[in-house]
Amino acid sequence: MKSIDINSDLGESFGHYKIGCDDQVLDLISSANIACGFHASDPVTMDRTVLAAAERGVHIGAHPGFPDLEGFGRRKMFLSPEEIKCSIIYQIGALEAFCSAHFAILCHIKPHGALYNMAVKDEDMAVAIVSGILSADPCLTLLAPYGSCLQKVAEKAGLPFAAEVFADRGYMDDGSLVPRGQPGAMITDPGEAADRVLRMIEEGVVRTVTGKDIPIRADSVCIHGDSPQAVAFAKTVREALERDGVSIRPF
Amino acid sequence: MKSIDINSDLGESFGHYKIGCDDQVLDLISSANIACGFHASDPVTMDRTVLAAAERGVHIGAHPGFPDLEGFGRRKMFLSPEEIKCSIIYQIGALEAFCSAHFAILCHIKPHGALYNMAVKDEDMAVAIVSGILSADPCLTLLAPYGSCLQKVAEKAGLPFAAEVFADRGYMDDGSLVPRGQPGAMITDPGEAADRVLRMIEEGVVRTVTGKDIPIRADSVCIHGDSPQAVAFAKTVREALERDGVSIRPF
Amino acid sequence: MKSIDINSDLGESFGHYKIGCDDQVLDLISSANIACGFHASDPVTMDRTVLAAAERGVHIGAHPGFPDLEGFGRRKMFLSPEEIKCSIIYQIGALEAFCSAHFAILCHIKPHGALYNMAVKDEDMAVAIVSGILSADPCLTLLAPYGSCLQKVAEKAGLPFAAEVFADRGYMDDGSLVPRGQPGAMITDPGEAADRVLRMIEEGVVRTVTGKDIPIRADSVCIHGDSPQAVAFAKTVREALERDGVSIRPF
Amino acid sequence: MKSIDINSDLGESFGHYKIGCDDQVLDLISSANIACGFHASDPVTMDRTVLAAAERGVHIGAHPGFPDLEGFGRRKMFLSPEEIKCSIIYQIGALEAFCSAHFAILCHIKPHGALYNMAVKDEDMAVAIVSGILSADPCLTLLAPYGSCLQKVAEKAGLPFAAEVFADRGYMDDGSLVPRGQPGAMITDPGEAADRVLRMIEEGVVRTVTGKDIPIRADSVCIHGDSPQAVAFAKTVREALERDGVSIRPF
Repeated sequence: MKSIDINSDLGESFGHYKIGCDDQVLDLISSANIACGFHASDPVTMDRTVLAAAERGVHIGAHPGFPDLEGFGRRKMFLSPEEIKCSIIYQIGALEAFCSAHFAILCHIKPHGALYNMAVKDEDMAVAIVSGILSADPCLTLLAPYGSCLQKVAEKAGLPFAAEVFADRGYMDDGSLVPRGQPGAMITDPGEAADRVLRMIEEGVVRTVTGKDIPIRADSVCIHGDSPQAVAFAKTVREALERDGVSIRPF
Repeated sequence: MKSIDINSDLGESFGHYKIGCDDQVLDLISSANIACGFHASDPVTMDRTVLAAAERGVHIGAHPGFPDLEGFGRRKMFLSPEEIKCSIIYQIGALEAFCSAHFAILCHIKPHGALYNMAVKDEDMAVAIVSGILSADPCLTLLAPYGSCLQKVAEKAGLPFAAEVFADRGYMDDGSLVPRGQPGAMITDPGEAADRVLRMIEEGVVRTVTGKDIPIRADSVCIHGDSPQAVAFAKTVREALERDGVSIRPF
Repeated sequence: MKSIDINSDLGESFGHYKIGCDDQVLDLISSANIACGFHASDPVTMDRTVLAAAERGVHIGAHPGFPDLEGFGRRKMFLSPEEIKCSIIYQIGALEAFCSAHFAILCHIKPHGALYNMAVKDEDMAVAIVSGILSADPCLTLLAPYGSCLQKVAEKAGLPFAAEVFADRGYMDDGSLVPRGQPGAMITDPGEAADRVLRMIEEGVVRTVTGKDIPIRADSVCIHGDSPQAVAFAKTVREALERDGVSIRPF
Repeated sequence: MKSIDINSDLGESFGHYKIGCDDQVLDLISSANIACGFHASDPVTMDRTVLAAAERGVHIGAHPGFPDLEGFGRRKMFLSPEEIKCSIIYQIGALEAFCSAHFAILCHIKPHGALYNMAVKDEDMAVAIVSGILSADPCLTLLAPYGSCLQKVAEKAGLPFAAEVFADRGYMDDGSLVPRGQPGAMITDPGEAADRVLRMIEEGVVRTVTGKDIPIRADSVCIHGDSPQAVAFAKTVREALERDGVSIRPF
């Protein structure tokens, strides 16, 4: 039987500032990437988010980012490999303690924002991130795009890896995402999004923005939950996948 | 044979800012309280400090503080019990990951600065701190003053406890420290400091600033390493204790 | 003709995190208290908020807070008088530069959250705040409650002062607000709120939670804009005041 | 009579963390670049540093940096032009308020660290910085290298400009500094450093690392004061310049 994981970034509120529809998103996903206090979140938010995920049996992953709350971890920063490695260790540890507190297990890790985007293409950064994961907890699965530096470095190092795809984003011929703002960047029709994911699972290909089919591996689909519209879109995609006989479960 | 632990606060540099004579202090102590990034430190400093302690066989403890780098955790802040509990879980987890990275074990925890001073006298804060420790890692020993709220709450909750004394500080009749700036606050003669510690170990008493002997329990002596003078003082105290037949080892 | 100022706290978004209905609130008020980056806001938010206020002719004030983004400046902190004074100078200067950038004038200052609440009752803090204002810009009007330490210290120092009242809050017999959560803390009926403000302006009294009339001075009414409901309430109060012949204009 | 300004970066302590030999450096320089709380410093440090400079008649400049205390503003960050512009306005305003507090005038501005290095070569960043300065205070002189994007953009915009040279650094044929770590990066002999500065002033040239003479403009020499050795070096350079008939005074 066909199955896929659905993941989403959660727990990105900060103090008095609330964002995301976490409660609704948790009912749609099998894996939660939980912010660790660098690009977003705070200890109380982490505690509550881990508990909410654990109560629903959603798998918990760390979602570490650059130390840049003001930029929400979306601004490129150039840290040394040692700084990157240690910031990964730190954030994994912090989240893992909340998992212990709620008798949950930390299963995976997915870098956030600029850290993720840079490491996809930068082998040195990928090495620093993988090295941090191996130091903190070598049982974690790294969630990242198929064909990225993160995949290559993880597999070389023997770190478990799962391939992430995006239901609502267009792909370039080289397997990277069409940059936001360019034509074809966003897939806005949930039915089309579900069909694309289905092809990724069944045929291992995705149609690019130029109309070409390229190979892709899909262990987990990323959905967004930052607005009620995003949640509705995600819900429709999930239902369409289930109708097509795909079961949703953690990788 | 008589023995005592010597502890010191370490790893309090931050980025470009370096403080403390950590390398020299590590040769004098059996337990290191390592800052966790809230009142001081950063991921790289934590990594290096944990490694330096582990290499010397010095026992490692977490030294969590208020989220106040600018005030070095010395300014009173009023956080909710949930905020305190979660900030303890977070900081323990972060440090524990660096211990894992270096195959070391996190042994104890000692709150820092205003968090320590407030919780000594405030039962609600002591409960929040102990609750955070139990959630993150109930095997940790809490290091705090004899007779403090922290001791009472820890013992009631079944959390391991060790009593901390200060070699270089005067005591009030109620067992609290003479506030800095008041007469008798500081013991400046290292010989006298060693004699006082010896009495604490052998007789279980300390002479207060009014000349009275009060009961005290001493599992660990805190020394300071923030200046070359402080290190020299600590060295002299340690040598005097060893001459008096006290072996220095972790509690 | 009767007149009163209406003020509100604005510009409290932070980076990716958006809060408040600033655009709607700006149409209801004559004075904006704009956050300065310590308890909330960031340089871009300050720039945009100052511009939005200046474009509408709304008077601009600084809204400095404790350096505590995570706690939104609502957690008590104990800073030294020098730290408080300098943090006031810093925040005034930062906001004043955005006023210069948009050819606007900084008119007033109202401390935020715990800084405000503590200084209302603590003369040393009030002295530190007033001293910071006098150092940075002695032309600013301090907006604070009638009868507070802030008023007394400001008037003694010759700093312009304006008295703030709350339309949606109950008062105790000593002129302080009924703490949130206690019966009578909130005035939920906008008509009643407007009537109360009208009495403050015309008769110089407010009925307390025990039914007593106490003297009060009202130069400015504070309204809240953190939710659509709060904005609707504020709008109704403003309209009721205008119907009663009160013109809304800056103090 | 020949003259030159000597500038140095000051006021870079942060809370409990002290760095730099500010008191000694202030006796050697005519212009102080004072940190503004983003890459270093805090309100109290700014207040004390402005006062110390004002008391000695040293000209005061703003030294704004990236919002990155942990990296001391030395890590490249990619902010939007609006974010850069607003962060410049913010930091100028904050420092200017301390100048007002001490009846001093803010004279110039010199970006710090990665912000400086990136803007030297990146016209968009230079435009954002110059635009922020013009918005906050168009009377400030921008201090930056001759031939840099900062110079070109400042002069095009009509912003006063002064050319900064480095006594202790080697130059490449294109006028940029030899990167630290490469041969010829550092001039370690103070006599040689003074001779090089003298040639810059008198002949308008500097000998590059390849032995070529290239044109350079020197309005201000930057010296470092982060260690007693750096201060001694700077002192020797200053004395040599004065012996050669160069008077030290602000540009």
